[in-house]
Order: sequence, then structure tokens, then C-alpha cells
Amino acid sequence: MKRGVLIVLSGPSGVGKGTVRKALFEELDIDFTYSISMTTRRPRNGEVDGEDYFFVSHAEFEENIAAGNMLEHAEYVGNYYGTPKSFIDKTLGQGHDVFLEIDVQGALQVKEKMPEGAYIFLTPPDLQALKERLVGRGTDDPEVIDRRVAAASSEIRMMANYDYAVVNDEVQLAVQRIKDIVKVERLRVNRILPEYIAMIEELGK
Amino acid sequence: MKRGVLIVLSGPSGVGKGTVRKALFEELDIDFTYSISMTTRRPRNGEVDGEDYFFVSHAEFEENIAAGNMLEHAEYVGNYYGTPKSFIDKTLGQGHDVFLEIDVQGALQVKEKMPEGAYIFLTPPDLQALKERLVGRGTDDPEVIDRRVAAASSEIRMMANYDYAVVNDEVQLAVQRIKDIVKVERLRVNRILPEYIAMIEELGK
Repeated sequence: MKRGVLIVLSGPSGVGKGTVRKALFEELDIDFTYSISMTTRRPRNGEVDGEDYFFVSHAEFEENIAAGNMLEHAEYVGNYYGTPKSFIDKTLGQGHDVFLEIDVQGALQVKEKMPEGAYIFLTPPDLQALKERLVGRGTDDPEVIDRRVAAASSEIRMMANYDYAVVNDEVQLAVQRIKDIVKVERLRVNRILPEYIAMIEELGK
Repeated sequence: MKRGVLIVLSGPSGVGKGTVRKALFEELDIDFTYSISMTTRRPRNGEVDGEDYFFVSHAEFEENIAAGNMLEHAEYVGNYYGTPKSFIDKTLGQGHDVFLEIDVQGALQVKEKMPEGAYIFLTPPDLQALKERLVGRGTDDPEVIDRRVAAASSEIRMMANYDYAVVNDEVQLAVQRIKDIVKVERLRVNRILPEYIAMIEELGK
């Protein structure tokens, strides 16, 4: 059984991660399992345990932390939210790709524990536009340029921790790039090799 | 100017590298520059210097070796053949992708000097077929299996030095996979980052 690919979509807040994720899950030719978060907050009307979230008690959540099962977690308004490793591991092991949409801080924590994922940084088109504007920069206010450069520097520092950078210039273009990345990740030798080595060992018995 | 991608297609002899390369260059939506080899053999009728080969004297070739300009070279029937770095560097610097088709030994030498390339290993469909046959292996002669396992082990050892493995099951499928790889390589952060850092440095001046 070929192991699935963990796809992590992240990026600065306001870049449009949620919009891209929704559009991606509407594509008919993908079959990603969405990573389900764990939380201690109560289910809202209509929310289903194991679908919208894994709803657990405070004690259970802390047991998961202690057992090393949380890839990342944070506290927000008195409740825990986090990404359980066991669900992702099981799903990847069944050969399904897992999709995780997460903020930059969370992505870095996940990467420490699952570096084999494909880490995608969604960038605002500003960064690209900034570059394109370089040629005609004389027309811009120096203060505006300074602010843009500062924002861009910060984004570039974040980007350095990822495998891929996808510009969110148009949602459908960003979606297509992510689909291409996943397709090509399956051809990467470091994904294929363990499978072949296992096969050879099996045949050599 | 965004630097081009060096694409190296390699694989065991007889796997069909040349056929895939020819089919790839017939695609209308690619714009790869083919890496031109240097040789000391005489031009044949109709061969053009700087198109088919860079035709040089023995002394010139050895000067190129001494100057570190040969990414790899070999002697064959008294003549030198090799891949000059300067041509590839210049073409990549102009923003064009360079395509190099080369045997496994040559690819490894090139990789030592230009690790930033996308190294693609073309695998025979046998390896895939061998895997698929695992289920019904009882029907195969043990000697046949042993030979297949030995060949597969050798191919897998070679594959470990590459970034991607592309199965040559159908030429058009292999071509499409290579095109996808190049498209996605352009999204890799380690390719994009230097460009952005240069931009920020330029703006910060």
C-alpha cells in the first residue's frame, strides 16, 4: 500500500487559505482527506464528532498532548484546539492524501514532527506585484515602498520554511498549482524509494 | 531575470531516454534548450558547430577540463565527449530551461557540480510490473524472479541519487510527467527564494 501525501497549506493571515481550500475540495478529480482538528470546545448545533472536530474533554486533550499525539495545539478563549497525529498517520497509511490548512506558526510545529509532508506557502499577489513594479519604481512614494518592502521581507522569511510557494493571484490558478504539486510529489524518489526497498526485501525472502 | 531550470533526464541503458526526449521536444508548449555536448571527433556531413556539438581540438578539450568547465566527460574510440558548464550556465542565466539527456554515470558527475538541477530517473515499466506481480508471484519461475529482483535492486540503487522517478510505461505519459515536474519545480521555494532575497536587497538600497 502506497502511503498518502500530507499536504500542508499555510501562509500569512488574510492571504485566502480558506477560499483556496474550499475551491480545492470542490474539484472532482481530487480525493484528499481533510485533517480533522481536536478541540475541547462544545459542539455547536449540527456539528458531528469525528467529522467537524474530534470533541474531547480538557483531560483527554491533555492526555493527547502528554502522549505526543498533538502535532500542534493552541489555546483560544479557554479552549484547546489542535491537530492529532494519529488520525493523519492512519489516513496516510491507508494510502489517502491528507490535507491540512493551518496558520504559519502551526505549520512550523507540524513540520518538526512530520517533515515528509509537502509544505505549501500561499503568498499574496503583492509580493509578485512588488517585483513587477521594480522596473517602474520611480513612480511610487518612498514610504509606500518601505512599507511594502518590510511586509515582503517578513513574508519571505516565513516562506523559507516551506517546500513550495504558490501565488494566490486567482483562486483557480492557485488550486491548479496545488493539484500539480501533489501529482509531482508522488514522483519524488524519497517517497517512492521506501516502497521499492520494501518490495525488494519482500521478494528476497 | 528568473534563472531557468536544469532538467537532467537519465536512467539505465535501453529504458528509452532518447525516445522520450524526442517526444518531449515535439511538444508545442515547452521551450527547453537542449544541452549541447563538446567533442573532439570531426563533424559529420551536415553537422553544425554550436548546434549538433561544439567541435573542438584535443588541446581545447583538455583546456576545458583543466579550467573546470566540463561537468562530465568520457573518452570513446579515441575521442572526448562531454558537457560544458559554461553553455548551461549562460542559458540558465538568460532564464531558459536547459534539458540534458545523459547516462547514469554522467548524471552523477553533473549532479556533484550542479546539484540545483531537477534529476529525473526514467525507470523501465518492469519495476512497476514486478511490484504488481507480487500478488500472483506463485506462478513465476523462481529463477526468473531472482533475475528480476537483481535487476530491480540495481535500478533502485541508482534511483536513490535522483529527485524524481518517472516510469516509461507509455512515452506520452512519461513526457507529461516530465512537463509536470518542470512546472512544479518552478514553485519550489529553494528556486524562488534567491530571486526574492535579491529583490528585497535591491529595494532596500
